Amino acid sequence: MSRTSDIDILISEVGPRDGLQSVDRTMPTEVKNKWIDALAGAGLREIEVGSFVSPKRLPQMADTGDVVKHAITIDHLNVLALVPNLRGAEAAVEAGAHALSMPVSASRLHSQANIGMTPEEALEQVAKVDELRRNSGRAVSLEVGVSTAFGCTMEGPVSEDWVIELAVKCAEAGADSVGLSDTTGYGNPAQVKRLFTRLRDELGQKAGGAHLHNTRGQGLANVVAALYAGVTTFDSSLGGLGGCPYAPGASGNIVTEDLVYLLESMGLRTGVDIEALIAARSIILQGLPGEPIYGSVPDAGLQLGFAYAGQGVSA
Amino acid sequence: MSRTSDIDILISEVGPRDGLQSVDRTMPTEVKNKWIDALAGAGLREIEVGSFVSPKRLPQMADTGDVVKHAITIDHLNVLALVPNLRGAEAAVEAGAHALSMPVSASRLHSQANIGMTPEEALEQVAKVDELRRNSGRAVSLEVGVSTAFGCTMEGPVSEDWVIELAVKCAEAGADSVGLSDTTGYGNPAQVKRLFTRLRDELGQKAGGAHLHNTRGQGLANVVAALYAGVTTFDSSLGGLGGCPYAPGASGNIVTEDLVYLLESMGLRTGVDIEALIAARSIILQGLPGEPIYGSVPDAGLQLGFAYAGQGVSA
Repeated sequence: MSRTSDIDILISEVGPRDGLQSVDRTMPTEVKNKWIDALAGAGLREIEVGSFVSPKRLPQMADTGDVVKHAITIDHLNVLALVPNLRGAEAAVEAGAHALSMPVSASRLHSQANIGMTPEEALEQVAKVDELRRNSGRAVSLEVGVSTAFGCTMEGPVSEDWVIELAVKCAEAGADSVGLSDTTGYGNPAQVKRLFTRLRDELGQKAGGAHLHNTRGQGLANVVAALYAGVTTFDSSLGGLGGCPYAPGASGNIVTEDLVYLLESMGLRTGVDIEALIAARSIILQGLPGEPIYGSVPDAGLQLGFAYAGQGVSA
Repeated sequence: MSRTSDIDILISEVGPRDGLQSVDRTMPTEVKNKWIDALAGAGLREIEVGSFVSPKRLPQMADTGDVVKHAITIDHLNVLALVPNLRGAEAAVEAGAHALSMPVSASRLHSQANIGMTPEEALEQVAKVDELRRNSGRAVSLEVGVSTAFGCTMEGPVSEDWVIELAVKCAEAGADSVGLSDTTGYGNPAQVKRLFTRLRDELGQKAGGAHLHNTRGQGLANVVAALYAGVTTFDSSLGGLGGCPYAPGASGNIVTEDLVYLLESMGLRTGVDIEALIAARSIILQGLPGEPIYGSVPDAGLQLGFAYAGQGVSA
């Protein structure tokens, strides 16, 4: 399980799930494991290591059971797996995942395209998964992310009232926490601040993290707005690998390297070593030669006199 | 002169100055003029069209007098020129610039490298330029930007107290407004919010805008922090062209296209048409074939259901 008492912000690395699912090629299992080792070695406390979905639909994720079994051997790492439904949750619990992440989409068209269910049907699955994990005989967390919370490539704007209503229903259905996902890179800082403030007002301690994409270059701007709304957990992906294959035009999670730099330079402790993250990028390219990866801090390097949060020299 | 009553945020386009001075090749004068026409046509109210510096040092800027003479024929456009000293200011006033922009660097090493003066000597030049423009027989604005206000590639961290002290001295020396420049891309949102809040507390109406670079991908994140500190003027560059040739490793102003998208999507009116901006990018490449330009919104396009500020359909 993760330690979080010595950090201010929890970064949940989603590259092995959200990143890899957007790439047609499959990264070999041993490279996934090596990558996850390096991510944990860089100080990341939580990694979403894969998803339990049909291998016909996402063959890149067919080995998620084996990847989970490896990841749970790493000390102090919270191992998440994405599960769209009860069947996936059964496999994830069986493999030993510490936490289950379920997507519930606010957009009806996206919900059908992504998981083949209406939002209401997805809520029923949340309730069933909650029952499953409570009967599993061990502590398994259940997190929901409300997808397309900031807009949908198929529907356009999504009602903010509905997003919050759906988040409340997810908590009522049994989720330990409910976060908001900008699946499509449509979010803007005013909207992000407004929605996360409402989420916190409604859900209190069950208000979850922010899953932001950088499709229009607004990812870190949205992080700042989320910080002002009190968000303390952020998803990101090493090298910005990733996106949603069912949201046409949406590409790229926010870049972990740039996110850690942002937070640490603001004085917020993440526990993550930026240079170790940068070194881990080469493992992605071992498993997926030639794959485009992103990030500004890896190119520009740390600044002269850079200090991690809590170790700063004030000038 | 610019109209600003119908906008919330003034975007000051600096591509023809900060962008072009970082490129070794020289854009032909007629292309510069065409580019400036397109920028103004897209709705930009203020453009820094060049700098009056030694043509030996920056041959790319040798035609700034001619460019100013063209730009001042455009209706409703505030035409800025950068001047490092009295000599440059004389040429700018002679050419008909509406406003003079002077850099005063907080870093002593950067000040010497950039303008060959100490900060104190630069302040003396501000006072002399103030006298010149007051005796010019017409209304000429005088803006100062405190360079390296967020750190220096040669000195590392820069004292925040000194940055504010210097800004106050610039105002006392005669500047109408004093902004802060992240010349090196070192700024973080906490620092940006803190410094612009202090600037406003000290200078009131004379507190100027934010000149931010995107060296480490933090540009728009810093914009959000500056907005929270009440900043209403931002410099940016079409296609992210630009940087500071005397700050090694620093490259790239924030991208005007992505900035306008950010602000408009937040409900802040800029008066600028994003698609017209995107169309203007081709002119840069006419004048500088093959030059790298940047931006996420030009690649991803506007989102489904995008609405400019004040014209939004709430969902």
